[in-house]
Amino acid sequence: MENRKENFSEWYNEIVDIAGLSDKRYPIKGMNVWMPYGLKAMQNIDRIIRTNVDSRDFQEVSFPVLITRDQLSVEFEHVKGFENEVYWVTRGGMDQLDVEMALRPTSEAAMYGMFSLWVRSHADLPLRIYQIVSVYRYETKHTRTFIRIREIHFFEAHTAHDSYDDAERQMDQYREIWKNISHELCLPYMIDQRPDWDKFPGARYTLAFDTVLPGGRSLQIGTIHQYGTNFSKNYDIKYLKDDGTHEYVSQTTFGLSERLLAAVVGIHGDDQGLIFPPAVAPIQAVIVTIPSKSLDVVPYAQAILDELKAAGIRASLDTRDNYTPGFKYNEWEMKGVPLRLEIGEKEVSGNRVTVSARTGGRRRQIDRGDISRSVPELLEEVAGNLRARADEHFRKLSRKYDSIEEMKNAQGLVLAGWCGSRDCSDAIEGKLELGALGFNHGSEASEKCVVCGKDGKIAVFSRSY
Amino acid sequence: MENRKENFSEWYNEIVDIAGLSDKRYPIKGMNVWMPYGLKAMQNIDRIIRTNVDSRDFQEVSFPVLITRDQLSVEFEHVKGFENEVYWVTRGGMDQLDVEMALRPTSEAAMYGMFSLWVRSHADLPLRIYQIVSVYRYETKHTRTFIRIREIHFFEAHTAHDSYDDAERQMDQYREIWKNISHELCLPYMIDQRPDWDKFPGARYTLAFDTVLPGGRSLQIGTIHQYGTNFSKNYDIKYLKDDGTHEYVSQTTFGLSERLLAAVVGIHGDDQGLIFPPAVAPIQAVIVTIPSKSLDVVPYAQAILDELKAAGIRASLDTRDNYTPGFKYNEWEMKGVPLRLEIGEKEVSGNRVTVSARTGGRRRQIDRGDISRSVPELLEEVAGNLRARADEHFRKLSRKYDSIEEMKNAQGLVLAGWCGSRDCSDAIEGKLELGALGFNHGSEASEKCVVCGKDGKIAVFSRSY
Repeated sequence: MENRKENFSEWYNEIVDIAGLSDKRYPIKGMNVWMPYGLKAMQNIDRIIRTNVDSRDFQEVSFPVLITRDQLSVEFEHVKGFENEVYWVTRGGMDQLDVEMALRPTSEAAMYGMFSLWVRSHADLPLRIYQIVSVYRYETKHTRTFIRIREIHFFEAHTAHDSYDDAERQMDQYREIWKNISHELCLPYMIDQRPDWDKFPGARYTLAFDTVLPGGRSLQIGTIHQYGTNFSKNYDIKYLKDDGTHEYVSQTTFGLSERLLAAVVGIHGDDQGLIFPPAVAPIQAVIVTIPSKSLDVVPYAQAILDELKAAGIRASLDTRDNYTPGFKYNEWEMKGVPLRLEIGEKEVSGNRVTVSARTGGRRRQIDRGDISRSVPELLEEVAGNLRARADEHFRKLSRKYDSIEEMKNAQGLVLAGWCGSRDCSDAIEGKLELGALGFNHGSEASEKCVVCGKDGKIAVFSRSY
Repeated sequence: MENRKENFSEWYNEIVDIAGLSDKRYPIKGMNVWMPYGLKAMQNIDRIIRTNVDSRDFQEVSFPVLITRDQLSVEFEHVKGFENEVYWVTRGGMDQLDVEMALRPTSEAAMYGMFSLWVRSHADLPLRIYQIVSVYRYETKHTRTFIRIREIHFFEAHTAHDSYDDAERQMDQYREIWKNISHELCLPYMIDQRPDWDKFPGARYTLAFDTVLPGGRSLQIGTIHQYGTNFSKNYDIKYLKDDGTHEYVSQTTFGLSERLLAAVVGIHGDDQGLIFPPAVAPIQAVIVTIPSKSLDVVPYAQAILDELKAAGIRASLDTRDNYTPGFKYNEWEMKGVPLRLEIGEKEVSGNRVTVSARTGGRRRQIDRGDISRSVPELLEEVAGNLRARADEHFRKLSRKYDSIEEMKNAQGLVLAGWCGSRDCSDAIEGKLELGALGFNHGSEASEKCVVCGKDGKIAVFSRSY
């Protein structure tokens, strides 16, 4: 396998293929086949997302994939932002369609006409919905599995509120939700407020969750947007107030995608292959039998499998005897299974199991009777190790610099003072090929701009995916 | 509400709307919005399907929605069958695309090129995969929610086998799977082998699961197809045999859709609204509190809610005090919740609960301590009642007739002798407006054709959706 640190890009492409996550031999560039193992991991991520939003009274819906040109054109900034990257359906059977329809690049234009029918009064607010669907972008740049593609597995939450303040509270709640999700995925991140020229088309402001992959390039893995009344005024979404007048709602959105899986793959993996956080792992614990001539170890292993499954662990049993134990260990390591339970003659006669964690450390002996208690604890330990390693990686790749000179060979998320002007960010981009991710959210301390020397704040620059 | 028996079509449209299953005010005809309650019901149906196929070693995948014209054109019958009803994407952004792409109407053409890469030897067979996705049909007929639409929620399983016999065994297994699924959904059906002119484009033969809605029209709610080597020869899917030669695989598919929800709505509902089978119900048991001046009944109700949830019941608590209990009862009845638990002063002081089943019968008193045991039993009872009622309805609407004369005012699934010729089925269609659903599967006894009098077998005719 490729060396992950030195050739991250090649390592990434190889592991996505050989671990059975995605097959990119489909004949349309940037549209890949979700293979069973990759789809299971993504569905586990979806489940984490759903659990977090369902518990906060978001309702799941599903809107049509097609959006008419009329629907899309309602908000000017929005259509301008997307018109160069949408796919257009122009024919049905042999008929030229009267109305051209776009494959949704995101669903504001699909949803907000319906919002104007659904929202009537205070009783309908806040409105909180979400959907998990595919969205489509006619991507002209180089594509990369889970990172830059043309068919995107997408989570989008949309809310409507009776006031801007309430919409701001929603933005705070999104950050809480995101904190929980990123904790389960063991992903470090920082929050950056995108420059005005890079915010979501139609938004008042955009906060992005940025992380960094081993190659040193940043990856946006989530965004939350404050729309204020920008959309509601155009789509006519308003409610009747107590005084008999109507007011436009304030709106927000929260978007996540399969880039979460890209980050899990890229940040946690090593030269042996994938390492899945237990919450994401399609298989959390694999039991590998070591054949013995003196006794059949399978019934003992099968009983442990049943016990683990009953305890809610995603466990699997590998009794293949046409492969050596070593081959099987390598395969499950490559596939990123957090825990391996080895069962041979010694384990059966000693009434125990040998356990090995994918994040390393010594192999351990566990008493047979302790398994249902120990395995969840060991999974927690793996998650803790992944967080610690990822945080360390993140710290190394998100450092502050005090001058353009220092920034010259900087890698990752490059923090530096910035005045906020496009001229100064263009200068940084021109000299260093680092784009502005925007002001670092929460860094309020004043800091001189590394370009013009004027007063500014800490901002983040990077080469990004 | 509309009378279900007399105005089934209007009743159906009304209940789909007021129960919050689907909103058809979306600006594209035949593309509707899945509302939270309807989506939950569909997701429960999906879960039943997944459980049944996962346990038989089917692997879930997800293929791209777009299919190039080249991919679609590989199998002649197949493309001919679909070319008049696919949506074509012809532009990306401002660019005219070099290769026109269809929104999948079904996924044979998307999948089978990949199958030719995946299948190499015996070790890769049988290959069993499935996906649950949206498919698209440019439907020119009158649309109807969940029944005839342009964006269809679709389950499709695809298999490949080393021999025709093994593919035939797969067809048998599909019928077993379907038996389990239809049992959970409490849906009666018959299996009909579609006439050659109405089989799936490219299939050797098609077996359909047909049911009948109260209006007397038949509804196809599932199909299984034997492809033999029709597709594998065109898509070049073959494996290396032990003797060094290559052989084309035999293939089958199994398709289900949101029509399952249409059947659940149409067959089980009554003049009060929906009745969900417990396995499908988004809410299986609703607890309705009856406010009391002398004591707060909510803590008692809340404890029961928690207990039911812990027992794996999808339970909900309605403590709204701005509505009368009667209003709330009606609402939950309309929404088809199988069990209602009433909790007022008498229940709290008597340490019990009053339970009412959506399928009728006397209200029952249950001891507080028995709830976790009784509620699952009562849910089973509701399912049993639904099956009995649906079977009775099905028997009335699937009768055998001995002559064209007798068939004149026949409703539902009309069984009659048929020789199998198109001429005779055209004659029946011309005189009675009944289309041929094909020979009834499993009826092997010889029967004279009601048109020509020649030897034939029992076939099924109907007005269908």
